[in-house]
Amino acid sequence: MYMNNQKLLVDYSLYLCTDQGLMSTSTLEEAVEEAILGGCTVIQLREKDCSSKDFYELALRIKKITKKYKVPLIINDRVDIALAVDAEGVHVGQNDLPARVVRQILGPDKIIGVSTARVEEAERAAAEGADYIGVGAMYETATKNNTRPVSKEELLRIRNAVTIPIVVIGGINKERIQDFHETKINGIAVVSAVISQKNIRMAASELKERFLKL
Amino acid sequence: MYMNNQKLLVDYSLYLCTDQGLMSTSTLEEAVEEAILGGCTVIQLREKDCSSKDFYELALRIKKITKKYKVPLIINDRVDIALAVDAEGVHVGQNDLPARVVRQILGPDKIIGVSTARVEEAERAAAEGADYIGVGAMYETATKNNTRPVSKEELLRIRNAVTIPIVVIGGINKERIQDFHETKINGIAVVSAVISQKNIRMAASELKERFLKL
Repeated sequence: MYMNNQKLLVDYSLYLCTDQGLMSTSTLEEAVEEAILGGCTVIQLREKDCSSKDFYELALRIKKITKKYKVPLIINDRVDIALAVDAEGVHVGQNDLPARVVRQILGPDKIIGVSTARVEEAERAAAEGADYIGVGAMYETATKNNTRPVSKEELLRIRNAVTIPIVVIGGINKERIQDFHETKINGIAVVSAVISQKNIRMAASELKERFLKL
Repeated sequence: MYMNNQKLLVDYSLYLCTDQGLMSTSTLEEAVEEAILGGCTVIQLREKDCSSKDFYELALRIKKITKKYKVPLIINDRVDIALAVDAEGVHVGQNDLPARVVRQILGPDKIIGVSTARVEEAERAAAEGADYIGVGAMYETATKNNTRPVSKEELLRIRNAVTIPIVVIGGINKERIQDFHETKINGIAVVSAVISQKNIRMAASELKERFLKL
């Protein structure tokens, strides 16, 4: 339940990254609503292959849904789209704008997340003002190619190195959640394990339950 | 010669859009410096196929040159990159963020340009707060595919419809400048007619001279 200036209270437990290419049925709006009803606590909108106008218009439509359920909307990469729709935050990767620059643009109240795969990246993200980090890819995944999985040892080193929330990402599904027992992560980020499923709400709900039992 | 808050004094006479793919030799930094020394008065940085980080870093390097010569730097499409490097403005097309939204993000002092091909687009751009419009493509061009050239009659209708500066774009070269005699345009925008030439400075200088004699 996200309210302005309450970014420290964000629940990262089930973090959904969208990917229209991986969807089987329904519109993205419907999928996001079902995901939220199933227990997703953060929505990240990720669109790499559309025009700025289309990304903006999609973000406006998704924002209506996340606002209705008071779930934070995070825009991938495009700080300008986040500003244009007054999203709650931005997520940047290592090939996007540096977190330090994003913080200057967005000011102190917006959420900034950074994708990291190593302790040094995690420490830099935290030092530059990130509110949370995504750590991954934890497994080989179809969504992101050419990424060597992050070892569990590296994840634990990252957990020891930073105090900001950590979500793990990359190939997480309901069977694998158990792998994160006693890792003190704050949430799991999923793409296909929710967005590609026939029953999105049930998929989210199962993942959420298993995560909470960790 | 651009100074803060002097956007009404911008000289649009020779407006260069960059395109690294069309360059033969030298770095983009060198090309931009040569273009400015040859008489280019505005530099628009256009990068569609690189990461946000690479675009940002390139924009930082180009900004050093434009700042040295007090020439406004305009960023294509990416309002966030413009904010990140404190560029003088942003140029948006019909598939980018609406000018009205860009104006909300950038505030009153930054330059906003909009690509238009019809009177209605030009009028909307002006109404939404654009500082200038690009009209084109004026000819068939290799840079932009699938565009039907704007007729001279439509250009004249646009000129009558809006009072903000107009630059024409799309296939302009030194032979064609004469076509714009008595059209009351404020400048010509070029890509390959400058950036692809062996002697960039001389190419710019020739174009500038011909435009000023119109």
